[in-house]
Amino acid sequence: MGTLVLLRHGESVWNAKGLFTGWVDVELSPTGKEEARRGGELLKEAGVTPDILHTSLLKRAIHTAQIVLDAADLHWLPVQRSWRLNERHYGALQGKDKAQTREEYGEEQFMIWRRSYDTPPPPIADDDPWSQAGDTRYNELPPELMPRTECLKDVLERTLPYWYDQIVPDLAVGKTVMVAAHGNSLRALVKHLDGISDTDIAGLNIPTGIPLVYELDERFEPTNPGGTYLDPKAAEAAIQAVANQGKK
Amino acid sequence: MGTLVLLRHGESVWNAKGLFTGWVDVELSPTGKEEARRGGELLKEAGVTPDILHTSLLKRAIHTAQIVLDAADLHWLPVQRSWRLNERHYGALQGKDKAQTREEYGEEQFMIWRRSYDTPPPPIADDDPWSQAGDTRYNELPPELMPRTECLKDVLERTLPYWYDQIVPDLAVGKTVMVAAHGNSLRALVKHLDGISDTDIAGLNIPTGIPLVYELDERFEPTNPGGTYLDPKAAEAAIQAVANQGKK
Repeated sequence: MGTLVLLRHGESVWNAKGLFTGWVDVELSPTGKEEARRGGELLKEAGVTPDILHTSLLKRAIHTAQIVLDAADLHWLPVQRSWRLNERHYGALQGKDKAQTREEYGEEQFMIWRRSYDTPPPPIADDDPWSQAGDTRYNELPPELMPRTECLKDVLERTLPYWYDQIVPDLAVGKTVMVAAHGNSLRALVKHLDGISDTDIAGLNIPTGIPLVYELDERFEPTNPGGTYLDPKAAEAAIQAVANQGKK
Repeated sequence: MGTLVLLRHGESVWNAKGLFTGWVDVELSPTGKEEARRGGELLKEAGVTPDILHTSLLKRAIHTAQIVLDAADLHWLPVQRSWRLNERHYGALQGKDKAQTREEYGEEQFMIWRRSYDTPPPPIADDDPWSQAGDTRYNELPPELMPRTECLKDVLERTLPYWYDQIVPDLAVGKTVMVAAHGNSLRALVKHLDGISDTDIAGLNIPTGIPLVYELDERFEPTNPGGTYLDPKAAEAAIQAVANQGKK
């Protein structure tokens, strides 16, 4: 059947500063833009040609996709965007320093907030400067859908309807579908695709800017479990770097 | 009812060189990118906030829209693209120097090709280096739809179905719709909106990078005939510059 290309955005200015980002709409860092350009080259070299692009509503994913498609001469692709592909909402942690949070709350609490499958951080207050309450791009979300914090389980639950309704139909007709999104919305998709357990998903990191390609069978399950990174060596190195985030 | 924002792409590298461009997919010049940034500022200053963006399949319109939306912090808008918003196909003139063509064929023939409502230039050969035959982005166009040359009448005929089917429904529910496109696809839309005659349309030039705003009534006719440029002085100056194109 179809081909799925997952792409995590390049480094953002807040990744670079070691801050929890979540739904805060920060720009790519110069390194992140360079990663995106490299991602486009990898796609072109591998001869993988998406037919359609899906992005979150956050500029680090939107701009990564634009740079990738420009590099691959595919700027004209149809695009769909959805809040369902957004990064995990990090609740009251949004805008906070990762290393400082680790110090303040201890390693155990820090790792629960970062990697627990079903324990979200404390919710963000609507008047917090890093809250998205009142952001017009979410005007079409009824209050019960608008997150104030999320765990990975929440992300999976709000991402799956988009997977089934917006992505699978194109895969079903054999298209190549690219999804430009975030560490946790992509981990949620990969958990579903590879049938990873609630426990094991904690150990899975997806590197930035390196296209991850899945070939899907008629049940929309991968014929190449775990997917294929277009630059496996760089992926391996980057996975290690992500795992070290927040360490001093 | 709704609000329509028309935006002609900024100067392209071939505008700058004085070449006929048409469906050839050339990039914005540095001046064109600057015009687009200014367009975004104008939109923001005027408090005009599009709900949805439509573009052609050509990068000078796509990139103009991206720069405009970035400048207005609207990078997350839904986007639709269509060949129906492409520039007029300039036939065998694509890639040719405007001033040289004027010299070679004379003022009269030159003006017929540039401004005649219903006389297209000679068709382009499929093996011409500036032909779009075989360009995968047009794979879904049956041969009878794929132009080899166009006059403005042809452009109007292929643009109107998009207007009626993709743009009007959003205007009907009161949305603000932005269309980032080209000199001639926008002239076709304006001809329709303002009921301009086949003769008078020859004298209408649309400046690059300056948003042109129409407020539409319940019959989708402008309540402000001719529309409103967000920078009327710059628009006036630019209209003069376009009129002088191809002159030595």
